[in-house]
Amino acid sequence: MKILITGGAGFLGKRLAKKLLQRGTLKNAKGVEETIDRLVLFDVVPADDFTDPRVTVMTGDVSDPAVLNRVVDAETASIFHLAAVVSSQAEADFDLGMRINIDALRLLLETCRRLGHCPKVLFTSSVAVYGGTLPEVVLDDTALNPKSSYGIQKAMGELLLTDFSRKGFIDGRGLRLPTISVRPGKPNQAASSFASGIIREPLNKEAAVCPVTPDTRLWLLSPRQAIENLIWAHDLGAEAFAQTRVLNLPGVSVSVGEMVEALGKVAGQETVDRIRWESDAVVQRIVGSWPGRWDMKRAQALGFKGDLDFESIVRAYIADDLQDALTS
Amino acid sequence: MKILITGGAGFLGKRLAKKLLQRGTLKNAKGVEETIDRLVLFDVVPADDFTDPRVTVMTGDVSDPAVLNRVVDAETASIFHLAAVVSSQAEADFDLGMRINIDALRLLLETCRRLGHCPKVLFTSSVAVYGGTLPEVVLDDTALNPKSSYGIQKAMGELLLTDFSRKGFIDGRGLRLPTISVRPGKPNQAASSFASGIIREPLNKEAAVCPVTPDTRLWLLSPRQAIENLIWAHDLGAEAFAQTRVLNLPGVSVSVGEMVEALGKVAGQETVDRIRWESDAVVQRIVGSWPGRWDMKRAQALGFKGDLDFESIVRAYIADDLQDALTS
Repeated sequence: MKILITGGAGFLGKRLAKKLLQRGTLKNAKGVEETIDRLVLFDVVPADDFTDPRVTVMTGDVSDPAVLNRVVDAETASIFHLAAVVSSQAEADFDLGMRINIDALRLLLETCRRLGHCPKVLFTSSVAVYGGTLPEVVLDDTALNPKSSYGIQKAMGELLLTDFSRKGFIDGRGLRLPTISVRPGKPNQAASSFASGIIREPLNKEAAVCPVTPDTRLWLLSPRQAIENLIWAHDLGAEAFAQTRVLNLPGVSVSVGEMVEALGKVAGQETVDRIRWESDAVVQRIVGSWPGRWDMKRAQALGFKGDLDFESIVRAYIADDLQDALTS
Repeated sequence: MKILITGGAGFLGKRLAKKLLQRGTLKNAKGVEETIDRLVLFDVVPADDFTDPRVTVMTGDVSDPAVLNRVVDAETASIFHLAAVVSSQAEADFDLGMRINIDALRLLLETCRRLGHCPKVLFTSSVAVYGGTLPEVVLDDTALNPKSSYGIQKAMGELLLTDFSRKGFIDGRGLRLPTISVRPGKPNQAASSFASGIIREPLNKEAAVCPVTPDTRLWLLSPRQAIENLIWAHDLGAEAFAQTRVLNLPGVSVSVGEMVEALGKVAGQETVDRIRWESDAVVQRIVGSWPGRWDMKRAQALGFKGDLDFESIVRAYIADDLQDALTS
């Protein structure tokens, strides 16, 4: 079984790759566990740290048809399409966002269509597809109303995935991810980057800036559970996605103030004191347009799992990433 | 003031052109009535019947950048973008639908963006953006869930229009049209073509086939009111579209059985007897996925107007089109 991860050098891509290599199998189109004998990690930069013989590292522009023709072939049973331009970057560079978040996705789906073997395509969407006046709890049938180019592009991507699946060109499965926290590594150009930074930097004894007010409500998922849910979505039977191709994943609803409180509980006031509050109107506008909570009934009925609370998210970061960092 | 109508040789395009020439003015970006001194009718075939010196007829492929560069210029104050591939055709020819309903729209918006003068762009969307399990009355915040490629493409078009407007590239105004009935002329490849055919053909003493069951519920608007509403949407101040760029137009909720009953009331049983009932699973599936009614509060508050009932729609057709046909 040959698997492709686009965005394979990114933080989620690499973590997914490690998990897949560790598991060694995924369910095939017939629902039978099959051995992963090839894992292609494709990104604009090479995915490093992989010595496993099952891994092939490829680089190139995901919006280039010739590149995609090399990366995807009729053996590619499943694609985890994680390559994307993040929210603040898509807002700052409209053309780049359209090219990667729309054109590259469409090209990927067209490549699959032409090959004709109907692979599974796992697509990550986002809280950013919601916006405007929202109910306290967003429901499955709440209208999408994105207020950023990133959200618009993800919503269009969901529609493409849905129609390519309905036409039988792919078996598409879209997951709307809550904001991922705590991400390891460096800040990125996502408007939500601070949602990891205000926990990660203080725990690493560095200063952090929080660009939004303490009452800003976020809907969060740990990297650990994001990966578990991506694999779960892959292995579910087709009937789970028969009516709707896109699913809201479980999350934890928490205010930024409560996040900082949880950090203090785990790591003390000295750690909390490394956060400086400095509001940024653009970030506040984008992040403030996202829902702070959505209904999880469908996801939970299908067996998807979120985190217990934000404190356990902080502890998961310390266990999965901070110890790694300290010991490596 | 220079106005462009794409799809200008189509039935709605020509009717809109005639109405604009008769009115002679539209409101400009400042809300002031301005004389229409040039009206460009662009389509794949020439718009005939126009001798008015204000009219320029142009032909070409709306998805060709070079063609659009000729058709749109910095003088083009407003664009009525009616060019589209209709529902059954978009379902039968996936690539054609994507090329005209998505790529051409995006190209048009990109052309406007490059020119930098932020023209008004009137975009016609459709009931087909809704589908799946729907409430009895669709509300403004009911999620889009299109079940056809046409509906998917219109929903993606709405998102493009919304983001290009938010970025200040255009002043976009999208109208979700109910099914237009009674259209004059010949049947077309819209799945809803019968909604005109079962009235038009019998009134013209021809046989008609109804491919759906009598209990199928439709949401209808006459061509006359569609044109009035397009012009109304153009002339509204920008604040009407500040929160949401797309609006559900008023319509009349009626079952196919009730439509035929109204036809009988206006034109007698002999006319009704020209309809043959012959179900078509594809048409039934597509049309059956559309809402039979949606909430009109926002549209009515903004001054948009639907028809009184289906009988008055039939009488409007006889007055506007059947008499024309008889006397020309």
